Amino acid sequence: MILQEYLIDNIDTSFIDASLIPFAIHKKEIKKGEVITPLNAIENKAYFINQGIVEMSIPYLDDEKIIDFYFEGDFFSSYASFLEESLSQVKITALTDVSVEFVVKDDLRKAYQNSLLANKIGRLVTEKLYLKKFRRETNFLVNTAERNYLDLLERDKKIIENISVIKIAKYLGIQPESLSRIRKSIIS
Amino acid sequence: MILQEYLIDNIDTSFIDASLIPFAIHKKEIKKGEVITPLNAIENKAYFINQGIVEMSIPYLDDEKIIDFYFEGDFFSSYASFLEESLSQVKITALTDVSVEFVVKDDLRKAYQNSLLANKIGRLVTEKLYLKKFRRETNFLVNTAERNYLDLLERDKKIIENISVIKIAKYLGIQPESLSRIRKSIIS
Repeated sequence: MILQEYLIDNIDTSFIDASLIPFAIHKKEIKKGEVITPLNAIENKAYFINQGIVEMSIPYLDDEKIIDFYFEGDFFSSYASFLEESLSQVKITALTDVSVEFVVKDDLRKAYQNSLLANKIGRLVTEKLYLKKFRRETNFLVNTAERNYLDLLERDKKIIENISVIKIAKYLGIQPESLSRIRKSIIS
Repeated sequence: MILQEYLIDNIDTSFIDASLIPFAIHKKEIKKGEVITPLNAIENKAYFINQGIVEMSIPYLDDEKIIDFYFEGDFFSSYASFLEESLSQVKITALTDVSVEFVVKDDLRKAYQNSLLANKIGRLVTEKLYLKKFRRETNFLVNTAERNYLDLLERDKKIIENISVIKIAKYLGIQPESLSRIRKSIIS
């Protein structure tokens, strides 16, 4: 899916006229395994996935925890770094070959000054990112690991189907052995 | 602080002309202990605190966990419910007598259609709410309870100064006894 289609379907049908898109859109191909945003960089791009899978992680002791996975039709960015111009606390990596479109921060900043459509896009995309974070927070606070895995099965089939067990365990914040136990108990 | 001041300082100086505010603002006084948004209600208001302290909690077993505290100059709402018209998973309660201003969802929805300023406000407030959630997620994932308490001491002095130890423990996701131990080890 390309960004223009997403904008037509989700923000405003007037984007059928591509000249109404209030910022430049760039394209990029990224190889599997490539780091898109390194730790401690300052993020200056907001990405939209045309194809492929991306992972966001945060270092933890000698290992890492996984914050999120992103698929075709998702936006991603080290968004706190992007908004605050702070050092990125997270690392973003391509899990497969990935095709993206992206917007550069400075273009977006300029568009935000006077464009109704740019602010509508920014608001709606940020609302979506907020809702994802809110769900994850409440899940962590009140659910068992088993409940969170069942939620994934129900809502995020793409994660279950495309991501290794080890990575899913890191995303759920549990040991791979615990996840294997949960999977067995569900099947039986 | 009143909402108009906040808008002038943080969104756009043109709000010095109150007639430019693109939605109706209502006022309300709330008594200490009053539930502002009950569990399972559908939220249709976004609030701004003029004075007082508000708590957002989520039920957990026979008890609850605290998601956040809000102070003068903060926005609050059961925002996932507000955005998705879903049942509120959280409960919002006044911890002190509270003065608020609020915007009704239907007014905001209409303003979002054509108002650049309304979308700018919605975008910037949502960015702020996102950043709070992002920080809390990363803190939960990688920090010890002690580190999170030190962060509170540093960044959210208002919480330490105004909220009971039992509630702070519920906010940090630990037992009150663990928090007492942490506090003692910091002082010594």
